[in-house]
Amino acid sequence: MGDTLLTSLQNGDRRALAQAMTLVESTREDHRQQADQLLEEAYQASCDSIRIGISGSPGVGKSTFIEAFGSHLIEQGHKVAVLAVDPTSPFNHGSILADKTRMPKLSTSNRAFIRPSPSAGTLGGVAARTREVITLCEAAGFDIILIETVGVGQSEITVSHLSDMVLLLLPPAGGDELQGIKKGIVEVADLVLVNKCDGDLKTAGEQAVSHYRHALSLVQQPSSNWSRPTEGISSATNQGMKQVWNHVQEFVTQMKASPHWISRRRQQRSLWLEDTLKEELWQHFQVKYSDDIAALKSQVTENSTSPVKIAHEFVHKLFK
Amino acid sequence: MGDTLLTSLQNGDRRALAQAMTLVESTREDHRQQADQLLEEAYQASCDSIRIGISGSPGVGKSTFIEAFGSHLIEQGHKVAVLAVDPTSPFNHGSILADKTRMPKLSTSNRAFIRPSPSAGTLGGVAARTREVITLCEAAGFDIILIETVGVGQSEITVSHLSDMVLLLLPPAGGDELQGIKKGIVEVADLVLVNKCDGDLKTAGEQAVSHYRHALSLVQQPSSNWSRPTEGISSATNQGMKQVWNHVQEFVTQMKASPHWISRRRQQRSLWLEDTLKEELWQHFQVKYSDDIAALKSQVTENSTSPVKIAHEFVHKLFK
Repeated sequence: MGDTLLTSLQNGDRRALAQAMTLVESTREDHRQQADQLLEEAYQASCDSIRIGISGSPGVGKSTFIEAFGSHLIEQGHKVAVLAVDPTSPFNHGSILADKTRMPKLSTSNRAFIRPSPSAGTLGGVAARTREVITLCEAAGFDIILIETVGVGQSEITVSHLSDMVLLLLPPAGGDELQGIKKGIVEVADLVLVNKCDGDLKTAGEQAVSHYRHALSLVQQPSSNWSRPTEGISSATNQGMKQVWNHVQEFVTQMKASPHWISRRRQQRSLWLEDTLKEELWQHFQVKYSDDIAALKSQVTENSTSPVKIAHEFVHKLFK
Repeated sequence: MGDTLLTSLQNGDRRALAQAMTLVESTREDHRQQADQLLEEAYQASCDSIRIGISGSPGVGKSTFIEAFGSHLIEQGHKVAVLAVDPTSPFNHGSILADKTRMPKLSTSNRAFIRPSPSAGTLGGVAARTREVITLCEAAGFDIILIETVGVGQSEITVSHLSDMVLLLLPPAGGDELQGIKKGIVEVADLVLVNKCDGDLKTAGEQAVSHYRHALSLVQQPSSNWSRPTEGISSATNQGMKQVWNHVQEFVTQMKASPHWISRRRQQRSLWLEDTLKEELWQHFQVKYSDDIAALKSQVTENSTSPVKIAHEFVHKLFK
C-alpha cells in the first residue's frame, strides 16, 4: 500500500501527497506502521532539494513574500512546497496553515503545494512531523521547500534545524524601531530582506537596508565564510525576487563547495534521530508503565510532595 | 546544606535565592541531589501566591508594564518576583532576562526580585526550570509571581501552563492592524490590556479597547464563567494599574470560589510531573545507552536509512 501511495505521489498525484501527510501525522498504531514503511521508501526516493526557512515577525509579509518568491521559482521551472512550523502551539496552527487565500497564485499552480492544515486537535511540535512532511514533498519531486515560521523567537531556531538556509524578513521601519532586531534571530539568518520597500515606505526601507547591512557587518557569522547580504524587496510589487533567488543560489553553491552543506544536513539528521528516539521512548514508556504513571499522577494531585521528587524517585528506581 | 540555604532565602537573603536558582538549574550530578532536596523543602514551605503570566508581542511594552504594575503591587505590601519564559530558545534568553535596566524601580526594591539571567550556555525550556524557580520564590515569600513571555505563539501556551491567570498586552493599533490578534493567543488570555493609551495614541487606544471588548464577547471562554475584561492602560504614566489589580483580585476570588483554581493547579502539577519524567527518562537513557546512541548517530550520518527508521527499530527492540 505504501508503495502504491508512493508511486502516486511521485506521479504528481496531489491527493496522494496530502493522504501521505495525513498518514505520517497520524498517531494510530496501525497507521504508524504503514507510515514508517512509506516514509522509508520516500526517504530513499527523495530528490535533491533546497530547504529555505522564512522567518520574521507577524505582519512583516511572509505570506506575500512566499507568494511572490514562490511564483518566481515556478516560472524558473521549479516545484515549490510550502510548509509552516509552529513548534509547540496546538492553537494557531490551523489558522496559519490554512491560509491559502493569501497565496492565490501558488495555491492554484500545479507546480506548487501548500501543506494543508492538519485536522483539528492535532498538536504542533513533533506531532506536526515537519521533517517527515519535507521528505514526502521531496519524494514527490518538489525541489524547493519553503518553511514558514509562525512565531517569533524559538521558531527561528526550529526552522534553522529544518532548513539549509534561513531568510529573515524585516519591516522597513526607521529610527528607534530598527533596534528591535533580536541578536539571536539575526544569528540564524543567512539572508536579510527588508520587505515592503515600495510607495511611501521606499525611503525608510532603503535606510533600513543600509542600517542592517552595517549591523550585520559587525556580527560575525559563526561557522562559515558567508557574509550575509541584506536586500530591499517588495513582495507586493514582485520587486527583488530575482536578486533573492540569486543570493540563494550563491549561498547553495558556496556551501556545497565547502563541508558546511553536508555537515549541516548531517547535524539535522542527528537531531531528527534524537527527537524521534525521545518521542518513541516516551510513547513506549507510557504504554508499558501506564498504571504506574496513573498512580504517580494521583499522588501529584494531593500536593504533599513535589512532582519533581515523585518523578525522580520513579525513574531512579527503574534505572537502578 | 539545603536546609541552611532554605532558611537564608526564607529570611530574605537575596543572594541565597539567586544561589538556590543556580543550584536548581545546574545539570551537574552532585548539584542535582542537593537541588532535589532543597526543592522539596522549598515546595513544602512555599507561600500562597498568585502566578500571573504576561504575554504580548515584542514592543508592546511588557517590561514597562511589569515595572508599573509591579511597583503598584509593592506599594500595596506585596512581594513580587519577575521571571521570563522562553520555551526553547538558547539564544535570546539572556538578553531579555538581564534587562533589569528596563525595570529601574523594581530592580532596586527589596520587595521585588527579578530573576537573574542564567549563565551563558544554559538552555531554555526545561533546563530553565521555571516551575522550580517559582517554587523557590514562593518559599522566599514572594506572593505575586509575574511570568513574562518572550516569544509569540507557543510561549503563550507555555505561560498558561505555569500561571493562574494570563494578561495579554496589545498595542493601541487601529484599523486593519486590529485583525492581527491571534485566536489562539486570545484563548489563553484572562485579561486583555491595551497598553500605551496615552498622548497621541489615546483615541486609537480607546477604539482598540471597544474593538477587543466586542471581539471577546463573541468568543466563549472555554472552561469558566469568567468574562474576560478589556482595559486601556498606560504603563508609561502608571494609568490603570489599580484597575488591573482589581481585575486580578476578582479573577482570583471567582476562581477560588469554584473548582477551577484547584483543578488548574492540579493539571499544572500533572504536566510538571510528565515533563520531569520525560526529561529524567531521556537523561538516564542517554547515560545507559550512550554507546548505542553513538552507533545510531554514525549510521545516520551515512544518509542511507532515515533517522525515523533507525530510531523506531532501536526503541522497539528495547521494549520487546
